[in-house]
Amino acid sequence: MTGGLFAVPGMLGAACKTGVKPSGALDLALISADETMSAAGVFTTNAAAAACVHLSRAALMNRPEARTLVINSGNANALTGAEGEAHARAMIARAEARCGGPALVLSTGVIGVPLPIERVLGGIDEASRALRHDCGDVVDRAILTTDSRTKTCALSVGETFTVGGVAKGSGMIHPNMATMLAVIATDAPLPPGLLHEILVGAVDRSFHEISVDGDTSTNDAVVVLARRPSAQRPAVDVDAVARGIVAVAEALARQIVEDGEGATRVMEIEITRAAGVDEARRVARAIAGSSLVKTALAGGDPNWGRILSAAGTAGVPIVPADLTLRLGEHVVFHAGRPVVADAEALARAFAGDRVHVALDLARGAHRARMLTTDLSRRYVEINSEYTT
Amino acid sequence: MTGGLFAVPGMLGAACKTGVKPSGALDLALISADETMSAAGVFTTNAAAAACVHLSRAALMNRPEARTLVINSGNANALTGAEGEAHARAMIARAEARCGGPALVLSTGVIGVPLPIERVLGGIDEASRALRHDCGDVVDRAILTTDSRTKTCALSVGETFTVGGVAKGSGMIHPNMATMLAVIATDAPLPPGLLHEILVGAVDRSFHEISVDGDTSTNDAVVVLARRPSAQRPAVDVDAVARGIVAVAEALARQIVEDGEGATRVMEIEITRAAGVDEARRVARAIAGSSLVKTALAGGDPNWGRILSAAGTAGVPIVPADLTLRLGEHVVFHAGRPVVADAEALARAFAGDRVHVALDLARGAHRARMLTTDLSRRYVEINSEYTT
Repeated sequence: MTGGLFAVPGMLGAACKTGVKPSGALDLALISADETMSAAGVFTTNAAAAACVHLSRAALMNRPEARTLVINSGNANALTGAEGEAHARAMIARAEARCGGPALVLSTGVIGVPLPIERVLGGIDEASRALRHDCGDVVDRAILTTDSRTKTCALSVGETFTVGGVAKGSGMIHPNMATMLAVIATDAPLPPGLLHEILVGAVDRSFHEISVDGDTSTNDAVVVLARRPSAQRPAVDVDAVARGIVAVAEALARQIVEDGEGATRVMEIEITRAAGVDEARRVARAIAGSSLVKTALAGGDPNWGRILSAAGTAGVPIVPADLTLRLGEHVVFHAGRPVVADAEALARAFAGDRVHVALDLARGAHRARMLTTDLSRRYVEINSEYTT
Repeated sequence: MTGGLFAVPGMLGAACKTGVKPSGALDLALISADETMSAAGVFTTNAAAAACVHLSRAALMNRPEARTLVINSGNANALTGAEGEAHARAMIARAEARCGGPALVLSTGVIGVPLPIERVLGGIDEASRALRHDCGDVVDRAILTTDSRTKTCALSVGETFTVGGVAKGSGMIHPNMATMLAVIATDAPLPPGLLHEILVGAVDRSFHEISVDGDTSTNDAVVVLARRPSAQRPAVDVDAVARGIVAVAEALARQIVEDGEGATRVMEIEITRAAGVDEARRVARAIAGSSLVKTALAGGDPNWGRILSAAGTAGVPIVPADLTLRLGEHVVFHAGRPVVADAEALARAFAGDRVHVALDLARGAHRARMLTTDLSRRYVEINSEYTT
């Protein structure tokens, strides 16, 4: 189905411009439900996490419900001290006063710069007067930073319910999430504990499987809302709703990696027959994070030695003689030595929009998957002059 | 003093072209001493280590002495299976036959391509006939790959002894060494056990403190040679010789990072008041390995929030309120919040050839240091088309 978060019945949105973004683009979004919802969140593990992360995490632990989200972009309000925390609290209070609470706050943008809080609070006032279900793509656009396009997904669960979501993120994307925000909602009624469990599983299979540049950030958050169960509400096929939430999270994660800063192609890395999930992931992440693999990908250069060399740095005792490496359909390394492959066919396999790399460790029965992008000149250009 | 490895009395060198490098440049070097020397080595920890690493490590464990080193460049002879190991053994045997043993072999270049072994063995024959003490810079040049210049250093220890060294490396440079080779020699007599101890300390303070692109490689090695002690040889000031070896290793490491692929400037990261050396290093490496920090450095953009965000990913429980961050002479973050600094002065501090970043963790009494380079468009160009 078309649409994103606002395909879900009862979700309202609005956005406005506060001048935080030098470009003058939309930079403040309000998302509000027509009633208080079950809520769960997964947040960055960065030790320098922003005020919004501390406050939203604490609020959900204290009371796993929310009605309103206020999101500002262009300024992360991170590493801004007690003043930054006071600003985040003021945003929550204003959003609750104007749209109904409980409210959560999320921020994304430049780190270490104080928020122009009066303008942001004025923006909340302004946007609150424009809240509507049929809000077009203003929220989708207002949460972006270096993204080149909006990220949304919505789908039906059976004939009764909808799951929808919106996300931002294109640089600093890495397992454990980075410079990314996502909000997912459903009109299916679910208690908060179950919702949290579903969310953790969904994040594990989506946002934790992508990497753009190996960095993780101060502000990353995924929040999910669901109707609260009641005697009047219909029974829910929990598994079907969970699958819907996973599918929306996967679609948003894929859109983020495909919009990786300066990316020209995506590499899908599949690790099979690892001795455990953790080691499978470590190998996948070592490959996904390697600058040499990512520049070879940018050049369409099937320099597969770099893939195995990167795998060798993962701290996993892989044995070269046991490995099998495939690029696309072509086995290039097996039984401890290179397999001569048709050079032109290999080059073609490495030059498409989507390159598939499969590494069989022959150590066990576990697997992991990771999506990453190439490291292009354009990535360097985008990131060389972000604040100035 | 001028010169490098061959400033050390008794060291002989030669190089030739075997055609392994498509450019037709020098790609085979022989280094030989006028007698068997005490020898020690430190090698890559990569699980996909090359045949030369396995063989040289095993040889030194078995007998910590060497007279001859054969080094080929342009082909790493890594992930080449039993055939690759046979090739490395053949190189050792030929070098011992022509120059005297024991011999060690080191290789650097493309991974996963079989060596044209007959041409390499012919090159050993040819170079062995040209071995001389006054060999100019042919060895220094013959071990290079993507380097733009040779790396050498020599110094006197007291009035009696000399320490000299040569290295290659510019990409894939990272702690625990990557795509780098270094050979250091001294005419000071030292037993192998002591020599190994000195080398481990020297590598810790030099090659383990540099990072170009965060990758580590299959072939990295540092080998040191010293005269064997005997009753006829003069007494040695061991501390002075050790300091000389450290100084040569530091100079070579600095030359490697300054020649980082596409690098336009170097960042020196200093972590102070950590709770332990290990955590100080983890924070330093997280900053040095961050693509976002490195692209900001390329742009001369003093976007210091990325430095603290990278520090936050190190897995160390740093507390933002306790941190103090300096760029050059300017404090930019202290007591949990940004310190307003003169924007022009900050930009100047971030735009020089050498940028100094100091992060005080206020957690203990330990420190670490790391050198890294910027991530420039030129890096991407160099690495997008290495094999093709």
